[in-house]
Amino acid sequence: MMNTINHQPPRVVVLGAGFGGLTFCQSFAHPTAQITVVDRQNHHLFQPLLYQVATAGLSAPEIAQPIRSILRNQPNVSVLLRGVTGFDLAQREVRLGDDVLAYDYLVLALGSVTGYFGHPEWEKFAPGLKSLEDALRIRRRILLAFERAENGVTPAERERLMTIVVVGGGPTGVELAGAFAELTRRVLKRDFRKIDPRQARVILLEADPRLLRQFSGRLSAKAAAQLSRLGVEVRTNVRVENIGGDFLQLAGGARIESANIIWTAGVTANPLTRKLGVALDRAGRVRVNPDLSLPDHPEVFAIGDLALVLDERGQPVPGISPAAMQMARHVARVIETDLHHGRENLRARPAFKYWNKGTMATIGRSAAVAQIGRLEFSGWPAWAAWLLVHLVFLIGFRNRAAVLLQWTYSYFTYKLGARIITGAEDSSEVSSAHTRAQDSCGTRK
Amino acid sequence: MMNTINHQPPRVVVLGAGFGGLTFCQSFAHPTAQITVVDRQNHHLFQPLLYQVATAGLSAPEIAQPIRSILRNQPNVSVLLRGVTGFDLAQREVRLGDDVLAYDYLVLALGSVTGYFGHPEWEKFAPGLKSLEDALRIRRRILLAFERAENGVTPAERERLMTIVVVGGGPTGVELAGAFAELTRRVLKRDFRKIDPRQARVILLEADPRLLRQFSGRLSAKAAAQLSRLGVEVRTNVRVENIGGDFLQLAGGARIESANIIWTAGVTANPLTRKLGVALDRAGRVRVNPDLSLPDHPEVFAIGDLALVLDERGQPVPGISPAAMQMARHVARVIETDLHHGRENLRARPAFKYWNKGTMATIGRSAAVAQIGRLEFSGWPAWAAWLLVHLVFLIGFRNRAAVLLQWTYSYFTYKLGARIITGAEDSSEVSSAHTRAQDSCGTRK
Repeated sequence: MMNTINHQPPRVVVLGAGFGGLTFCQSFAHPTAQITVVDRQNHHLFQPLLYQVATAGLSAPEIAQPIRSILRNQPNVSVLLRGVTGFDLAQREVRLGDDVLAYDYLVLALGSVTGYFGHPEWEKFAPGLKSLEDALRIRRRILLAFERAENGVTPAERERLMTIVVVGGGPTGVELAGAFAELTRRVLKRDFRKIDPRQARVILLEADPRLLRQFSGRLSAKAAAQLSRLGVEVRTNVRVENIGGDFLQLAGGARIESANIIWTAGVTANPLTRKLGVALDRAGRVRVNPDLSLPDHPEVFAIGDLALVLDERGQPVPGISPAAMQMARHVARVIETDLHHGRENLRARPAFKYWNKGTMATIGRSAAVAQIGRLEFSGWPAWAAWLLVHLVFLIGFRNRAAVLLQWTYSYFTYKLGARIITGAEDSSEVSSAHTRAQDSCGTRK
Repeated sequence: MMNTINHQPPRVVVLGAGFGGLTFCQSFAHPTAQITVVDRQNHHLFQPLLYQVATAGLSAPEIAQPIRSILRNQPNVSVLLRGVTGFDLAQREVRLGDDVLAYDYLVLALGSVTGYFGHPEWEKFAPGLKSLEDALRIRRRILLAFERAENGVTPAERERLMTIVVVGGGPTGVELAGAFAELTRRVLKRDFRKIDPRQARVILLEADPRLLRQFSGRLSAKAAAQLSRLGVEVRTNVRVENIGGDFLQLAGGARIESANIIWTAGVTANPLTRKLGVALDRAGRVRVNPDLSLPDHPEVFAIGDLALVLDERGQPVPGISPAAMQMARHVARVIETDLHHGRENLRARPAFKYWNKGTMATIGRSAAVAQIGRLEFSGWPAWAAWLLVHLVFLIGFRNRAAVLLQWTYSYFTYKLGARIITGAEDSSEVSSAHTRAQDSCGTRK
């Protein structure tokens, strides 16, 4: 950075190997700079398809790729499988447990975690969907609930086991609810002898008056209609007051008994942002300068879900992968120019501009909604667009062909191959505790 | 069965959904009999390829298939995801915890577990390879050891982390050692910056004077030579005296420091056989009648690894999947005839005859040994035969195309896609305890 002694190569440290962190590594070009990427997972995760792992449509390795293998051809990039524990921005150091990592430039790309609006105790009963472990835990819990229902229980118990509740009507909630409806109505229908999986209830709860508030009212209505057609009970204007072992308590007194509750109603920035000692918004996001650097720290940048950035209309840029990738490329350009011009460049740094390429959410087989500028699609055309965009995005993922094959096969046969339960049934508490520990020291985008 | 009241359909209970149990379900034909399959896993496992999951060549779902989906088109078959806890052969009942399952015919197909020759304390330090969890645990441990070595440790510590020891020179040990050599020398070679994975040591220990004692001496020597060429240190006539946290103590005083020890030196029958109250051999196998039924219990059969059966030369039939499948078909025919003819058939039951179709073990890319009758192959031809047989066997596995694709891709690029670490690093003790609990009450073949 500005005070770097010239005979030492500039050290760039990137925290998090999600879409933001990896895009930065791939687009940053400098003849001598050394990049170190720190992540506590060994894999990059294709998060847009995580719901497919939770609903047994894809297997975990199909949407994950070792970070080392993505970056193997960049000898200027080192990967550290470590958890971040703190920062010393004045000394320009990142703490990794007892170790310290010094930097000239720091890129924070730590992403977000599931947020429970001040009710962390709900996490145990209603897991979120942010990591492969989360997805596998949800899948295991639901498949085991159906196994227990088949095993001969009371009618009330059977109904409880065969009720799936998704809290939160954003894109993830809509995708999960649609996929669960297909799983129970189509895939599992002939697998059991004593229960009929088609009798399973899939309930989607949303506190707002409509689903998918990022989309137009027309598309929200279309999405709700497509979900109902699949068999999902869509309930809007419903506020959750409490979640327990096997039930949800709604505002107004209603209660839903369910052994399978999934929470997609909130995300907050990675809690590590609190250790930066800078101004955050209510969701824990870093309030960055227009160039994405931190106030008073031109050598530190925040990108992706972690950063609070406003677009041209004064709205926060959404926490989606295209936005993170655009920010990553912006910061790569800024640091390159810095290193080229030195200190005098600071005032001339360009502001980040978000280019909204559109949003889409899939609902089920051949059902989706998409909004691209003023264009709106739903049904088949939106689903085809969704498929195309996601397969194109999977470029670089060596499993793209396998994923396509799996989807094609599933599409025509409705037999899902990823329906394998692994892991200890009774270790869910352990992994849950572990997830929480990770949330407070993690480095995943 | 003999005393079945005729207006009630005969109840056949099958314990274990491995090759034996499933083959029985698929080949048993009777107009009214109801079959119940009990397994504590929801999936059938293609065990011959389990070593590929441990060495990050395949992902778990590629070699596993939900039992329900294999049997979905047989309405006379029910699947119970339960663990067996005991038997009452006199009452013709199987205990599943507090529940009881009554049968007219019982087929024991519970398979085997890793055996430590009276040293159960070694299991924690040197896991075996019998389940998906085992395979994922081995993979996780080895990939994390390399990550730690990259993270900057003392030279002695680095050597310890980069030493892999496989105990046992049978087919599984040979396959694992070969695959680990390829993983370190070819796949990981460009992934790290501070360590050179090609420097990793892969050591294969065998107590006998030669590897693969099932094969001819000539093929054993070929296998050892092929392994050496891949970089494996093959040591025969070596007896392990003790295994600890990070080391092996050999007879004679030598000691090997290693963070990655895998045990393939012994199997014993599922410990549930001890609860039958019948005669067992030293490996816990049931001494069955020539028709595979239990002495004094013509309505109970043992098949697969669980049964001690002698072939025409008086040798025990090996614990491999073709033998289990042949026994399953034999028992299906016996029970069908019984149900048709009633009690008078008992004396006329045919004896089981094992047909040895040959044995093969793969060593690495285009290296293998195969023995079919008096024919012996090694190198390329044996490898091609191995590939063909295993792909044919995977018929019915919906992932066969995906597995073939993955192998072809890996073959040409040496990039393995399954190199994903999931699960809590620090939960290995928990899963280890869980594995042990399962071993004592499990029902997996």
